[in-house]
Amino acid sequence: MTSPLAQAVPDAPDATGLAPAPVGAGPAADPETAGRRLDRALVTEKLLGTWADARRAARELAKDPALHRPVDATVAEHRARVMDQMRILAEAEVSRPMLPESLGGPNDNGGNVAGFEELVVADPSLQIKSGVQWGLFTSAILQLGTAEHHEAWIPAAMSLETPGAFAMTEIGHGSDVQSLATTATYDPGTEEWVIETPFRAATKDYLGNAAEHARAATVFARLITRGVDHGVHCFYVPVRDADGALLPGVRSEDDGEKGGLNGIDNGRLAFDGVRVPRTNLLNRYGDVAPDGTYTSPIESPGRRFFTMLGTLVQGRVSLDGASNRASQLALAIAIRYASERRQFTGASSTEETVLLDYQSHLARLLPRLAATYAGAFAHDELLRAFDDVFSGRGDTPEAREDLETLAAALKPTSTRLALDTIQECREACGGQGFLGENRLVGLHQDLDVYATFEGDNTVLLQLVGKRLLADYTDELRSIDRAGVGRFIAQRAEALSRRHTPWNRLLQTASDAGSPRRSSESLRLPEFQEAMLSERARLKIEEVALALRGARGKEPAEAAAIVNKHQLELLDAARAHADLVRWRAFTEALATIEHEDTRAILTDLRDLFGLTIIEDDLAWFLLDGMISSQRARTVSKDVKRLLWRLRPHAVDLVDAFDLAPEHVRAPIALGAEKERQDEAAAYFRAQRARTDAPVSEKAQKAAQAQREGRPGRR
Amino acid sequence: MTSPLAQAVPDAPDATGLAPAPVGAGPAADPETAGRRLDRALVTEKLLGTWADARRAARELAKDPALHRPVDATVAEHRARVMDQMRILAEAEVSRPMLPESLGGPNDNGGNVAGFEELVVADPSLQIKSGVQWGLFTSAILQLGTAEHHEAWIPAAMSLETPGAFAMTEIGHGSDVQSLATTATYDPGTEEWVIETPFRAATKDYLGNAAEHARAATVFARLITRGVDHGVHCFYVPVRDADGALLPGVRSEDDGEKGGLNGIDNGRLAFDGVRVPRTNLLNRYGDVAPDGTYTSPIESPGRRFFTMLGTLVQGRVSLDGASNRASQLALAIAIRYASERRQFTGASSTEETVLLDYQSHLARLLPRLAATYAGAFAHDELLRAFDDVFSGRGDTPEAREDLETLAAALKPTSTRLALDTIQECREACGGQGFLGENRLVGLHQDLDVYATFEGDNTVLLQLVGKRLLADYTDELRSIDRAGVGRFIAQRAEALSRRHTPWNRLLQTASDAGSPRRSSESLRLPEFQEAMLSERARLKIEEVALALRGARGKEPAEAAAIVNKHQLELLDAARAHADLVRWRAFTEALATIEHEDTRAILTDLRDLFGLTIIEDDLAWFLLDGMISSQRARTVSKDVKRLLWRLRPHAVDLVDAFDLAPEHVRAPIALGAEKERQDEAAAYFRAQRARTDAPVSEKAQKAAQAQREGRPGRR
Repeated sequence: MTSPLAQAVPDAPDATGLAPAPVGAGPAADPETAGRRLDRALVTEKLLGTWADARRAARELAKDPALHRPVDATVAEHRARVMDQMRILAEAEVSRPMLPESLGGPNDNGGNVAGFEELVVADPSLQIKSGVQWGLFTSAILQLGTAEHHEAWIPAAMSLETPGAFAMTEIGHGSDVQSLATTATYDPGTEEWVIETPFRAATKDYLGNAAEHARAATVFARLITRGVDHGVHCFYVPVRDADGALLPGVRSEDDGEKGGLNGIDNGRLAFDGVRVPRTNLLNRYGDVAPDGTYTSPIESPGRRFFTMLGTLVQGRVSLDGASNRASQLALAIAIRYASERRQFTGASSTEETVLLDYQSHLARLLPRLAATYAGAFAHDELLRAFDDVFSGRGDTPEAREDLETLAAALKPTSTRLALDTIQECREACGGQGFLGENRLVGLHQDLDVYATFEGDNTVLLQLVGKRLLADYTDELRSIDRAGVGRFIAQRAEALSRRHTPWNRLLQTASDAGSPRRSSESLRLPEFQEAMLSERARLKIEEVALALRGARGKEPAEAAAIVNKHQLELLDAARAHADLVRWRAFTEALATIEHEDTRAILTDLRDLFGLTIIEDDLAWFLLDGMISSQRARTVSKDVKRLLWRLRPHAVDLVDAFDLAPEHVRAPIALGAEKERQDEAAAYFRAQRARTDAPVSEKAQKAAQAQREGRPGRR
Repeated sequence: MTSPLAQAVPDAPDATGLAPAPVGAGPAADPETAGRRLDRALVTEKLLGTWADARRAARELAKDPALHRPVDATVAEHRARVMDQMRILAEAEVSRPMLPESLGGPNDNGGNVAGFEELVVADPSLQIKSGVQWGLFTSAILQLGTAEHHEAWIPAAMSLETPGAFAMTEIGHGSDVQSLATTATYDPGTEEWVIETPFRAATKDYLGNAAEHARAATVFARLITRGVDHGVHCFYVPVRDADGALLPGVRSEDDGEKGGLNGIDNGRLAFDGVRVPRTNLLNRYGDVAPDGTYTSPIESPGRRFFTMLGTLVQGRVSLDGASNRASQLALAIAIRYASERRQFTGASSTEETVLLDYQSHLARLLPRLAATYAGAFAHDELLRAFDDVFSGRGDTPEAREDLETLAAALKPTSTRLALDTIQECREACGGQGFLGENRLVGLHQDLDVYATFEGDNTVLLQLVGKRLLADYTDELRSIDRAGVGRFIAQRAEALSRRHTPWNRLLQTASDAGSPRRSSESLRLPEFQEAMLSERARLKIEEVALALRGARGKEPAEAAAIVNKHQLELLDAARAHADLVRWRAFTEALATIEHEDTRAILTDLRDLFGLTIIEDDLAWFLLDGMISSQRARTVSKDVKRLLWRLRPHAVDLVDAFDLAPEHVRAPIALGAEKERQDEAAAYFRAQRARTDAPVSEKAQKAAQAQREGRPGRR
């Protein structure tokens, strides 16, 4: 498929989908590689991934101007607009794929999430408000409720007849769901739940739909019956009547203007003895009989809690995908502009240099482009894992745990990458990047909160770190006597590496005296794989060893020891995420048969791998994993890759398949080129005139020559 | 002086200005240092710097609610509000200090800029709109015009009777002012200038006041007379009549919604043969006689151009100061909130941990706090240099060049620090940080453009790099024969360091076997000074050596060679800026006599120095400037400093002297503590009740005990 953007811009690909030979390859283009051509259509297919059809359909939908983010709207106007957009989506039944067969749906969870991710280019508020309505509110009924609940409430939730809030977070507690303080106390006399907000900090907060639109809420509260607190469960609670008036005992406040996503009416909900029927408990994992007896299919309260929370993973999965798509959009805008915008001349030359031909500009944008490619491939893996579990095909406790760890590793790192990428792109576009019409500032404002909602990034990375620690400990526990010997030998080797001068190491010996050979070997996938996997393993191992002292200690003391190594734990989690993405990129390369395309994407993968190594070079040096000589070639090789990739930069963003209706930023749709061409034509005409003004410098030089003096320089 | 914020919060300092003994020192507080007390009032004085009175007066003014940034305003509403605020400032004659004695002013340039910087906490739009009106438009008349112009136009510019635009930037050219394309052609027949926008890209753009309010503009255009183009000069051009209607030949467009600073009506101006009298040329550095003869007191067109551009430095100086103040505000909000907000318990403890007691939270905030302190001291130096030159007291070409280099080094690095700090603070405050009322998102939106206006950050750093290169070359040129020998010996030493295993180096030998000694020596100021100054010197030296090949080459080829080392050049410029700030901080320490205060601030300075070394550790290792053993202690020492500084974190932000009217964010003014206290009281009451619900876990354990079974864990 040919990219619609490519059709709209001057150097469109020919019918084969192959890009024309690149132009403007920059001052240091590598002749060996500059002649290569990317098969953009092929790359687009690879990036579309497993749910290509769902993505294509959503991309068509996202072209509709009615769904686009407004400019200069008040909070009230933006909210009303997004609510209208929600009705368009509900009418089109876009979230139908999420429904299981029992409710007449296709149970296509992967396709459902993939489609919603694509809406981020229309308006992130719409993506997130859809997520609140169908991904959280409706999903809670579906995942935590039983057949009776599904019949009673899901049709109206799907059709938007019941806009709903997902009332989990409280002012006092977000990521720490276990500490929520809202109570639901069972009254056997009336067979009702009494929902209560015991103090201000227990007020539900940041809830999409809560300030205005919600008619009902899935409220997370501590289930109390017969004097026992069974922990957090979920209750279906009507909050407003058909006219939008709050029901008795329900209080609501408006969160007001936010940093972004102002198309969503975030707000607070508090409950003063609000009563709902016994059957409003979503009772899949815990139920109460009319007499108040509590039962649950999961005996351990801890495991029960985490099973209920498992439904939250969908939000994290979709944020990973939406962040990646937002990064793609930002890069497409900045790279296309940088390929046309000219600034400063190389001294005597009459033509100014395009921004993308500056080394520093390439260094700002291309490593982020490489990471975005890696992120797209890793996201497809995450989505497959999610679909396996949620379809029920592969729903084992282990698969759920793996899915949650993968989501917890990818969501924080991709939202971080998106924010950094968007900001860098905005700055790389100068004053144009600051104008609302060019999209980058709005994208940053909206995606800002992706870093702290649906699980705060730091908290999620800590979860990943803890899981990796547990895996490491399990591994140690399961090894036999011979294995223990091997482990000790490995540790001894790691320690000795730190105290061995580099030149005694094998690595240095094999590179000896040849920076070129050293540089070639950096680009071997085996080398990168070894570096990144060893790093991930060693980082967690070192935390594990450092935490030995915490075992058997009083909890407070143990917590203090863990806290002393928190930064290393987070670092280990990030190293794990890097490895996951590097491997996903590498696996994707293996499926590409078109030689030039594979070669160009291999350069891009190398740029991703070497940038990670470069960013953590001191660690690799101090851990003896790289020789000084080889370390010195890393930056040089990164720079070489920048120039090798330079001729393909525009093709690589064209492969993101962003139509002009998705991009919308005038600077990325030819406005800059038009201005440049007009200015160039003016200067050509000037040069052709005999009466055009001459510069003072030229005039002085000519005068000096006439007078026989040496001209001033 | 006691901080008003400190007065408003519970743990206020006593009458001596000394903080009470700190509480909540965190799990690993250092007993050696935790008992120290910061003299906050003293630190406030040091931070106020040379123009303390001007700052204090401006801080009083900034408390006025009429000057505060509105929430949820449309672009039109925000613009109207800021224009009203401008009238308040004009009425109060706040910019009078900028006027020279000849115009009845005190010629207090430093105090003038210092005062305006403080307005950033009221509304950055107001700070920048004031900058446009008085710092750019009025200043251009003052600096580039002569007595007649001053009399004719300055009073109305000062009183805001003539709101003005500073029409320099064009769509096609911003930082490259020399390439501006608007023309001003002299017509001796009518003794007028004809101002012309020759093509779309030459349209003036991003001009504050241009979309709505400007009545006149100082227009930068190529002066053409008698067929000669004398380069860019500045002209006073009326653009709107008294009713606000555009004058004939003047076209204006609105830049619309921007990423921030929406209180300013940025827009475009284009000129179609607009005629102004000959005397509207601001003729201090170049004039045209009625017959069209051009004269200038500066013969070289290049030097003349840069002299005229020199007036721009004021904008850069004030952005450095305002960015620093914005960082202070963000840190005060995030650190105060983190000192009260509790999240997650250390296992059995009933009380949750405050955010600031997490290692990762300290690592997010304290290094930025240290850099902000360093930035405040360095900014005072910059302001003194600016005042010396602009007052005329020390206005030599060398002093101007030094001032420009210093401003070009500090503006990009402090705006970068501010954006990163504000974003980190916003994320560190979680969902609260995303609410408009808590200020952080608005600060980021407004300060975003500081990175690319008044000289794009990359362009400015490149200027610094080029100046450092020139200095280096001059130094080499001026050394005598003995000096050459010394230089060669130094280079040989630098090269040999790279190829010497660490354990042969003196540094390692002196630390041998003692990580503790190694860590102590890291904190010696001599060590940090040597590391940072050597780094700055070596980085520029290496670029200089790499660029030798460019000498004598064709300009295009030479430019390509320079481009291959652009990243290193920018890196060297940043290293220079780090050194300037480290030295300014160190010099400030020497003036503090109160022992505890000096000790705490020395820890903070060490944190600044060691963080720089940590961030560039691979470079120090590969350049042989640090041994592996010592390098391994850097991160540990940084962490130790975080805990040593932990008890003083709140005092250190209180010393910023931000009154509640400046802070305004509810989370930083006790709202969080109030909620925590209420929740704690509830739980205390619960524990006192006999009929309070017990947890399912506790109930099961009790039941198991009754039945004689081992309880489930």
